[in-house]
Amino acid sequence: MSTSIRLAIDVMGGDFGPRCIIPAVARSLLQIPDLHVLLVGDTEQIKSLCKKHKLPSARIRCIPTSQTILADDSPSSVLRGKHDASMRVAIEQVRDGQADGCLSAGNTGALMVLSRSILGTLDSIERPAIMAALPVAGKICYLLDIGANVDCTAVQLFQFALMGSEAVSELSGLKQPRVGLLNIGSEVNKGSQRVREAGELLRQSEALNYVGNVEGDGLFRGVADVVVCDGFVGNVVLKASEGLASYLQSELRQALTGTLLLRCLAPMLRMVLQPMIRRHNPGCYNGASLLGLKGVVVKSHGGADEDAFVAAIVRAAQASRSNLPQRIARRLEALGAISQSP
Amino acid sequence: MSTSIRLAIDVMGGDFGPRCIIPAVARSLLQIPDLHVLLVGDTEQIKSLCKKHKLPSARIRCIPTSQTILADDSPSSVLRGKHDASMRVAIEQVRDGQADGCLSAGNTGALMVLSRSILGTLDSIERPAIMAALPVAGKICYLLDIGANVDCTAVQLFQFALMGSEAVSELSGLKQPRVGLLNIGSEVNKGSQRVREAGELLRQSEALNYVGNVEGDGLFRGVADVVVCDGFVGNVVLKASEGLASYLQSELRQALTGTLLLRCLAPMLRMVLQPMIRRHNPGCYNGASLLGLKGVVVKSHGGADEDAFVAAIVRAAQASRSNLPQRIARRLEALGAISQSP
Repeated sequence: MSTSIRLAIDVMGGDFGPRCIIPAVARSLLQIPDLHVLLVGDTEQIKSLCKKHKLPSARIRCIPTSQTILADDSPSSVLRGKHDASMRVAIEQVRDGQADGCLSAGNTGALMVLSRSILGTLDSIERPAIMAALPVAGKICYLLDIGANVDCTAVQLFQFALMGSEAVSELSGLKQPRVGLLNIGSEVNKGSQRVREAGELLRQSEALNYVGNVEGDGLFRGVADVVVCDGFVGNVVLKASEGLASYLQSELRQALTGTLLLRCLAPMLRMVLQPMIRRHNPGCYNGASLLGLKGVVVKSHGGADEDAFVAAIVRAAQASRSNLPQRIARRLEALGAISQSP
Repeated sequence: MSTSIRLAIDVMGGDFGPRCIIPAVARSLLQIPDLHVLLVGDTEQIKSLCKKHKLPSARIRCIPTSQTILADDSPSSVLRGKHDASMRVAIEQVRDGQADGCLSAGNTGALMVLSRSILGTLDSIERPAIMAALPVAGKICYLLDIGANVDCTAVQLFQFALMGSEAVSELSGLKQPRVGLLNIGSEVNKGSQRVREAGELLRQSEALNYVGNVEGDGLFRGVADVVVCDGFVGNVVLKASEGLASYLQSELRQALTGTLLLRCLAPMLRMVLQPMIRRHNPGCYNGASLLGLKGVVVKSHGGADEDAFVAAIVRAAQASRSNLPQRIARRLEALGAISQSP
């Protein structure tokens, strides 16, 4: 592997496709000097946009594909068909050693099944999980799983904690990230049987800095750096938080333009509130990691704008640079056969 | 039953006990002219606080008890012991026809098991559920279950929808509340098997105004009036929303006092933002209904302040006035044996 970072990007995914992704790539190439990008998708669109946004030709390569995976394609149909889909070909670049990691804003279910099928799952991992960032109290709380696994066993939740801890230690530079278990109370007897069993495994483990149960409101009090839960709960909580934050921001905007005096003060208010609004803009934290695979795969929000897609590229480059899958594999190896827990 | 409303209130529950509850009762008696209150708890404290806050003696009655249920008492220990606990005696007033409904800010698990044991569950209901209000887009979205049942079958989720629809129709005056199913996507094949089966039951039912799956962010876009989910997800989402809203409010407060000019403008900003902050103060929506019981039981937030406890009393009085349990029972009867669904 060269010392530069090579990312394969599915240019056709997401709500806005190449029109949004190519300019985001242009900005990322300026921001990350050793980044090289494989642009996977419709050549004609890519070439014209690359020209328009003046992408440096030495650092990009176009990989033409003829198919696109749609938002409502079922994961099983994607697995059987669409062999020339941009998402699939982007993942194949990682398998074939052409890229250090890949990034897509397309259909999450399809990205997960294709990644599992093409790259494979790490040896002792039962199920890969998706980890996203929640902006919290000026820091970040990472939440996993956020949608890959609607039902999880206790062992799977425990494995999510190990993978999350390793990933966050790498992404945030924290030596011993505090790991919490999302639950409906602080006492150890709270929650479903699976959650209680997961708590038992986590308490017993010496490999983690386990801080116990974290309740919904605890997510926003910065009591843990990584919080594990099944993909149903994680998905609902993540989307609810994004929905509430964006709703409150629009309410605030409306309230602060309600009077003439406030409208005159608008530039100052904007300046004062900008850092806070920015801290809670989910776009700044875009780029969810698919953990537990034998390769780096990052999922961008489908509705990501240019700024948000840049954030996802930065995240993917960071995961690729640190070779996250190999780090997680080593950590699991050192722990022995954790998948044989009760 | 007289035409006035008689509420039994567990005065010993919650973080602040009688000191907060008695003044809240005083205000509620002014606000609801036909309200009569049974104050259940430590007589000495109650009498002295009633005197201090000038409660009208003709409209209150004190029921002395010697025990209090603590936050960490397990539901099973509460069921076996503490026969003279204020919470238990308050519920017994409803069973014995002395009160039209009861209200407690104490241990939720204990309140649920005692209510089920003392009042009983409605005939065709498998499990009672707790319904709370989320302030959304200037309206309210009711969410159930928020913690009574960590695992739910499809039939139970369907029953929650029926109970919630009837309750919201009564509490909000909506003729056909829009009912949604909390899920991780809009498509019918999303979610766990139980959630998919619940969706099937809901789609087939003609008794409900079913609007389909609601995602986490949909909760805050006002797409449904009632949303059903299992108690684990509901509890986490409710607490996460409260935690995020209160965190963002404190951030906002801080940002708006950051400069001297802003501090001078503070009174105006407060006036402009007050309605918005009030709309999102969970206290205004305090008072979760335990639905599916043969009597009215309302749970106040443990940390409720005086304002929030007044809101819970208003909610409990409203549920008692409309005889919600009987209305739900009639609705279930009209639908036949729904608990025999697949």
